[in-house]
Amino acid sequence: MQICNNIDINGKGHLTFAGRDTLELAKKYGTPLYLMDEGKIREKIRTYKSAMERYFGEESIPLFASKAASFKQIYRIAKEEDMSIDVVSAGEIYTALSVGYDISNAFFHGNNKTIDEISFAIENNIGYFVVDSVSELDMVDREAERQGKKQKILLRITPGIDTHTNKKIATGNVDSKFGMAIVTGQAVDFVKVAIGYKNLDLVGYHCHVGSQVFDASTFIDAVDIMMDFAYAVKNEIGYVPEYMNLGGGFGVRYVASQADIDIASTIREVGAALTQKCQELGMEKPKILMEPGRSIVADAGMTLYTVGTVKKITNFKNYVAIDGGMTDNPRFALYDAEYTVMNAVKADAPKLYRCTIVGKCCESGDIIQEDVHIAKPEEGDILAVLTTGAYNYSMASNYNRIPRPPVVMLAGDRDYVAVKRETLEDIVRNDI
Amino acid sequence: MQICNNIDINGKGHLTFAGRDTLELAKKYGTPLYLMDEGKIREKIRTYKSAMERYFGEESIPLFASKAASFKQIYRIAKEEDMSIDVVSAGEIYTALSVGYDISNAFFHGNNKTIDEISFAIENNIGYFVVDSVSELDMVDREAERQGKKQKILLRITPGIDTHTNKKIATGNVDSKFGMAIVTGQAVDFVKVAIGYKNLDLVGYHCHVGSQVFDASTFIDAVDIMMDFAYAVKNEIGYVPEYMNLGGGFGVRYVASQADIDIASTIREVGAALTQKCQELGMEKPKILMEPGRSIVADAGMTLYTVGTVKKITNFKNYVAIDGGMTDNPRFALYDAEYTVMNAVKADAPKLYRCTIVGKCCESGDIIQEDVHIAKPEEGDILAVLTTGAYNYSMASNYNRIPRPPVVMLAGDRDYVAVKRETLEDIVRNDI
Repeated sequence: MQICNNIDINGKGHLTFAGRDTLELAKKYGTPLYLMDEGKIREKIRTYKSAMERYFGEESIPLFASKAASFKQIYRIAKEEDMSIDVVSAGEIYTALSVGYDISNAFFHGNNKTIDEISFAIENNIGYFVVDSVSELDMVDREAERQGKKQKILLRITPGIDTHTNKKIATGNVDSKFGMAIVTGQAVDFVKVAIGYKNLDLVGYHCHVGSQVFDASTFIDAVDIMMDFAYAVKNEIGYVPEYMNLGGGFGVRYVASQADIDIASTIREVGAALTQKCQELGMEKPKILMEPGRSIVADAGMTLYTVGTVKKITNFKNYVAIDGGMTDNPRFALYDAEYTVMNAVKADAPKLYRCTIVGKCCESGDIIQEDVHIAKPEEGDILAVLTTGAYNYSMASNYNRIPRPPVVMLAGDRDYVAVKRETLEDIVRNDI
Repeated sequence: MQICNNIDINGKGHLTFAGRDTLELAKKYGTPLYLMDEGKIREKIRTYKSAMERYFGEESIPLFASKAASFKQIYRIAKEEDMSIDVVSAGEIYTALSVGYDISNAFFHGNNKTIDEISFAIENNIGYFVVDSVSELDMVDREAERQGKKQKILLRITPGIDTHTNKKIATGNVDSKFGMAIVTGQAVDFVKVAIGYKNLDLVGYHCHVGSQVFDASTFIDAVDIMMDFAYAVKNEIGYVPEYMNLGGGFGVRYVASQADIDIASTIREVGAALTQKCQELGMEKPKILMEPGRSIVADAGMTLYTVGTVKKITNFKNYVAIDGGMTDNPRFALYDAEYTVMNAVKADAPKLYRCTIVGKCCESGDIIQEDVHIAKPEEGDILAVLTTGAYNYSMASNYNRIPRPPVVMLAGDRDYVAVKRETLEDIVRNDI
C-alpha cells in the first residue's frame, strides 16, 4: 500500500521519502526528525491555484492556512509560489514578515485578536481581516482610523453545517466560538453593522465547515447556504459580496482506510454547484477563496524516530517506545488521530508485529498510535510516522523539557534545515 | 467558596492570590500570566517531608516530581528546602544542574531513556535510576561500567491497580507502557535479572498508581501488593529492598465538588497500613519514597487572562474569549480537565453568568472550561483560572505561534519573574 506518491521503498528495503533514503536522513540529522517534501508542498499549492482559477473563476485563489505549519521557510515557499496565506496571530504575521512576505496577500483570522495584534497587522498593511465579532469591528475600525487607513474586511459567518467530523475540529456548527450564525439572525445583523463603519471596507464573507472533510457535498452545502445568505442580504440591504471564502477542510489520507481526495475534481464539483446556484439566484459569481492548510502540508511531512524499548506485556500487548512522542505529535493525545506507522529499516517486510507505539514522555497518554501492525522492530530501528506535515511541528511542546525536533526540507537531491533542533540551552533560555 | 487558602477577595472586590491583588499583578506583568505562590510550594514540601518522616520512618522522603513544573527557580526552591526530586529527561536534569542542584538527590524516570540521557545522567552523578525495562538495565550497566561507576537503581513495577481515574493518567494498570507487571510474572524476573548486573546496585522498587487519587485506600492497596511482591521475591531469592517508592498521585482540588485531601492524615493512614503489613509479613519496613508533583504545585498556581470577545449565540451559549488558551493550558483539550474560573475584577459579585471560556487559538477545541458560572464579564476584565501550577507551563506550546506567558513568583510582598515572557523573536529563533 502506497499511502502517498512521495513514499516508496528502495532496493535496500528502506523507506524513502521524496526519493530519499530515510535511514540516511535519520543518520545525518538524528532523530526525532521532521521531514518535509518541498516539491509536494509546491505541487499541492499549484493544484489548488490552477483548479480554483479554472473552476471558480479567474480571481479565485487558495490561501495557505499557515497555522498548519508555520515557520520562515514555509512563507518563503508561499512567496515564491505567489501563494496567498491566512494567518491567525501576530506570531504568524511576524514570521511571514521576517522573510519579506508581502502580507497584503494575507487574511488575518482569529476569534479573539488582541488590540496589539490588530494594530501590528494594520501597521504592516495586512490585506484583509476576517472579522469574527462586532467588538472586533469596533477595534479594527478604531485602529484603522488612528493609522489613517481603510481596512478591507470579510465577516466570519457560521453556516450551521454538521460535518460529522471530530467535534473539536468541526467549526461550521452553530455552537462555535467562531463567527456569527445565520440561523440565529445574528449574521445578517453583523453585515448591517459592518457596512456602517467609516474605516472598514466589507469585501465579503467567510465560512469554515470543519476539518477532514472527504466529500464535495459538504462544500456544496456551504456554497448553498452561504449564497442563500448573500442573496437574502442583497435583497434586504443591497450589499453584494466581492469575495466568498469557503474556508479549509479538505480531508487528508492518514491511513489506507481513508479516502484519497482528488482536489481538482472536488473543486470542479463545487465550482459547478456554485455556477448553478448563482444562476438560480440570478447573482454574479463571487470570487472564491479557500483555505487549505492540512491538505497542502500533511502528506508533505513525515516524522522519523529511533526505536528504544520494545516491551512485551505477557498476554496483553507489545509496546514500542520511540525517542519522541506527544511533545512532537500531540494529535493522538488530543484527538485520537490516526497515523500510518512503518518500520523504515525493513519497509518491504511483512507487517506482522502488532503493537502500540508510545513516546518517551512520563505520561500514559503519550501514545503515537495504538494497535498497529508493522515489521517487527528492534532497538535502534528507525520508525516512520507518515503524514505528519500538518499540526505536528506547529503544535509541539517542551513537555518534560524535551527539545523540539528540527524540520528538514527535502528538495530533489538537496536537503536543508528549515527549523533547527532545539538545544537544552534553548529550553532554559527564558528561565531566570 | 474558598478553593484554597491562598485565594481571597480584597476590599475592592478584587481576587487576591498569595495576599496580592491579581489586578495589580496583571497590570504590572500583562496577560496571560502564570502566577506561582512560592510560600505555598514551600508549605506543601514541608508538609510532605514532615508527614513522611513521622508516619513512614526517618529516612522516608518525598521527591518533587518536577515534570509538573520544571524551570530553574523550582529547583532552587527544592534545593533550599533540601527536597529531593524526580526528573524524567536530560532537559530536566540540565535545568536542575544549571542552578547547582545536587542531582545525587534525584531519581531519573522514564520508559525510554536514550543512551545520551543515560550517559549524561551518570556523568553528573545522578542518585538513582528508576529502571523501566531489561534493555535499560543493559544500557545503564554498560554506561556505568564505561564511566567506572556503580549506579544505584530502583525497578519500576506495575502493581495492576485500576484507579478509576482518567485513562490517560492511570499508570498502575497492567496495560501500561511503564514498568514490569507483577501479575504476568515479569516483575519477579526483572528483579532476578537486575541483581545480576555488576555495575548496578538495586536498592528498591517503584510503583505509580495514577494521578488524581483522592483516597488513602488506593495507596494502601499499592503498599499491600508491593509488600507482598517484596515478600515473595525475598522468599524466592533473598532480595530485600531498602526503598519502596510509592509514586505520586495525590488528588488536587480543581473545583469545589472535588475532595480536599489532607496530605498528612492520608500519609498517616498509609503509614499505619505499611507498619501492619510489614508486621504481618515479618519484614522490616523499607524506606518509603513518594513523588508528589501536582499536589505540591497545582494550587500554588493561578493563570490570569484578559477578557476579549464576549459572544452570545442567541438561544445557544455565551462564549467568553481570553487572550490565552490551549497553548498555555492544554489540559481541557487533552483530558477535559476541570478548572475553577473567576472574574477577578468582581470576585465578590454573584456568579450568575453561564458561559464557556475559550482561548484565542484558531481551533474549536481551544477551550479552557465549558459551562461555568462567573460574574458577568466585560471586555478588559481579568479572568483567573485557579489551580494551574501543575502541567500548565510545563505542557505549554507555541501553537499558532503564540508566545508562552511568563511565570511570576509571589513571595510575601515580593513578586519576581521566574520565567520570562516569550517574545516573537524567541519564536522564530530556530527558524532558518
